[in-house]
Amino acid sequence: MALIVHKYGGTSMGSTERIRSVAQRVAKWVRAGHQLVVVPSAMSGETNRLLGLAKDLMPSPGDAAALRELDAIAATGEQVSVGLLALALQAQGVQAVSYGGWQVPIQTDSAYTKARISRIDDARVRSDLAAGKVVVITGFQGIDPAGNVTTLGRGGSDTSAVAVAAAMNAAECLIYTDVDGVYTTDPRIVPEARRLASISFEEMLEMASLGSKVLQIRSVEFAGKYRVPVRVLSSFTPWDIPIDEEARSGTLITFEEDEKMEQAIVSGIAFNRDEAKISVIGVPDRPGIAYQILGPVADANIDIDVIIQNVSHDGRTDFSFTVHRNDYARTMDLLKAQVMPSTGAAELRGDAKICKVSIVGIGMRSHVGVASRMFRTLSEEGINIQMITTSEIKTSVVIDEKYMELAVRALHKAFELEQPANTVG
Amino acid sequence: MALIVHKYGGTSMGSTERIRSVAQRVAKWVRAGHQLVVVPSAMSGETNRLLGLAKDLMPSPGDAAALRELDAIAATGEQVSVGLLALALQAQGVQAVSYGGWQVPIQTDSAYTKARISRIDDARVRSDLAAGKVVVITGFQGIDPAGNVTTLGRGGSDTSAVAVAAAMNAAECLIYTDVDGVYTTDPRIVPEARRLASISFEEMLEMASLGSKVLQIRSVEFAGKYRVPVRVLSSFTPWDIPIDEEARSGTLITFEEDEKMEQAIVSGIAFNRDEAKISVIGVPDRPGIAYQILGPVADANIDIDVIIQNVSHDGRTDFSFTVHRNDYARTMDLLKAQVMPSTGAAELRGDAKICKVSIVGIGMRSHVGVASRMFRTLSEEGINIQMITTSEIKTSVVIDEKYMELAVRALHKAFELEQPANTVG
Repeated sequence: MALIVHKYGGTSMGSTERIRSVAQRVAKWVRAGHQLVVVPSAMSGETNRLLGLAKDLMPSPGDAAALRELDAIAATGEQVSVGLLALALQAQGVQAVSYGGWQVPIQTDSAYTKARISRIDDARVRSDLAAGKVVVITGFQGIDPAGNVTTLGRGGSDTSAVAVAAAMNAAECLIYTDVDGVYTTDPRIVPEARRLASISFEEMLEMASLGSKVLQIRSVEFAGKYRVPVRVLSSFTPWDIPIDEEARSGTLITFEEDEKMEQAIVSGIAFNRDEAKISVIGVPDRPGIAYQILGPVADANIDIDVIIQNVSHDGRTDFSFTVHRNDYARTMDLLKAQVMPSTGAAELRGDAKICKVSIVGIGMRSHVGVASRMFRTLSEEGINIQMITTSEIKTSVVIDEKYMELAVRALHKAFELEQPANTVG
Repeated sequence: MALIVHKYGGTSMGSTERIRSVAQRVAKWVRAGHQLVVVPSAMSGETNRLLGLAKDLMPSPGDAAALRELDAIAATGEQVSVGLLALALQAQGVQAVSYGGWQVPIQTDSAYTKARISRIDDARVRSDLAAGKVVVITGFQGIDPAGNVTTLGRGGSDTSAVAVAAAMNAAECLIYTDVDGVYTTDPRIVPEARRLASISFEEMLEMASLGSKVLQIRSVEFAGKYRVPVRVLSSFTPWDIPIDEEARSGTLITFEEDEKMEQAIVSGIAFNRDEAKISVIGVPDRPGIAYQILGPVADANIDIDVIIQNVSHDGRTDFSFTVHRNDYARTMDLLKAQVMPSTGAAELRGDAKICKVSIVGIGMRSHVGVASRMFRTLSEEGINIQMITTSEIKTSVVIDEKYMELAVRALHKAFELEQPANTVG
């Protein structure tokens, strides 16, 4: 008998028919002798419907008072889901009880629409589990110290599930989603892409942050911080497949390297074409220049991803960074108005038609030559590399967006990711 | 400056357009210098939609565990409403904050789907009002001692509003609804029916319990118990009518007789055709017989309205009562099976085609001849009276349902209710 957390996305909860099938799946786990905590999302479309109503009344909510109301409104979507799922479980003859985030309570800070979980009190949940009940808890939300409802931001239910699993010291957190696991890269681009049986949480973190949308990145951070084994698996397999088969399906995100079943050097190829590149050319190379350039950008609440500054020549250097493509025009205007005049830079260059392609793998730590194999592969395809950054377990390049698919396919082949447990180095 | 509670029904909250117009009306009261607490219902149709989803998953929820989930689901309708109204107020430049019943908190017992309010903590609301905010509170719901969400039953938002007004010692509770006040009788039956400028809460209680659906009966009980002046008025007048005019519109439910502006003997005619009549004939007149007949009916959770037992002849009496028409067949079956054999009654008679017509008026306390005028009027119309019951301020008769409209019209005319402040005795 183990304590297991299940998380179901909005599509899995999209109709009463589907909720019934979630209940049947949960009931199967209960009958196999496990204790279950279930964290469902709002029914698909519901959060958008609620926020649409709010937007009708206040097109651009800005201050905390308005964001507080937005959160209170949006949180009701999951409150309906948990009640419906508890009823569906009871209808299957399984004892179940639902809780809103405020009832557990799941305590958060007061950053409306993007709150962070600070503490989960597990007493109430434990006592229900001990009484033989399935506990159904709202994802996406919590309560701040003043008793206000907060939400964790889009995809926050993943984070809720992992946080609950951490607080309860669950054996595993199963994230049921509309894909059947984590792939070496996007199968829509590389048909040979292969599902990974396991991936380390550090690799997953890099994959998630680089645009693989399987899990919300904060849920992966949480899993790593609290060492929660997380499994991503499909909610579209029939609910009545044998439980052993289901328990081994999907991709397990592990936090211990020796638990990893495959010892690949490169685990996957991530990519992202939502970014734009900006370079400030011929900047005087003096202390404080990075802050002088990026300070105004940060003040305008624009997220910066990659930052590159190379060695200087003749006391001048080039400073490059990437921002989300939606922020590109605003960032360029801001640099022209506030940064260029004051820094004495020679030139401002920008390009929104770029993409970022990355190889990710925990084996890169101990293997040399991985990056150079990447560069050689791109060179053989005639793809020019515009920027390079590296971390311990990933190497990213910025290239022209028109080469993205070509680059991903070539790298997938070069690192033999279509083969299980590759050992190319 | 006064503290005023506004309550808006589901139709008034039916769309973002209408919510905006509610916000404009509330803003007008704020700008006139009043402190406002607003209790809105769920958007029209929303509670039914939510309960429909629940019914899909559990067609007949019976035990407390299922009813608890129903309440948690249904309560979200108002939680959305309060957030949307707070946003709409903020968009009008009015400071506003919303609270769910659990946040105030509005404490109730644990009788899911029909909970009763036990206590309202007004500290949080008072502090917001003092800070210049409009406080928007969910109707229909509260929290039980164990921290579970409860609902007060259909129409419960009226009760919430009156209870909040009582707890806050508000100057007046304004119930905005789809009628513009309380009438001497239903204008669809008597076109001359007149809106009453005021009515005593005892009369309102009789009117409400007799089928005038303007206010939920428990809200009237609450108003009487805590002496809250309640005004029923229309939410369909333009929001920008002068505030003085609005403040005098509708019908004021008073709790002090000397405040009553009209000294009518009969204030209104109520009627109800949802009942059925059952008579147990020739019952031995012995102690305990009433319990022997009605005990099984009460045990089956069937509500009994009128009960009549007249004096006996030759040691036998006739025992009559009315039940809701939906319970008629079930009650007859139950009496045949359980009551008739054991009591030695001679005969069981039932009639579902009846109606109850009542005259209601606080002046009946001190005026004789009111009932006899009622009976004379019905006699002149050739209407046979099947049953009669009286209380201090009402006289009810049960008649054939086909005479209902005729009886109501004749009585309305006989007591000159189309005239303001009648003094007929």
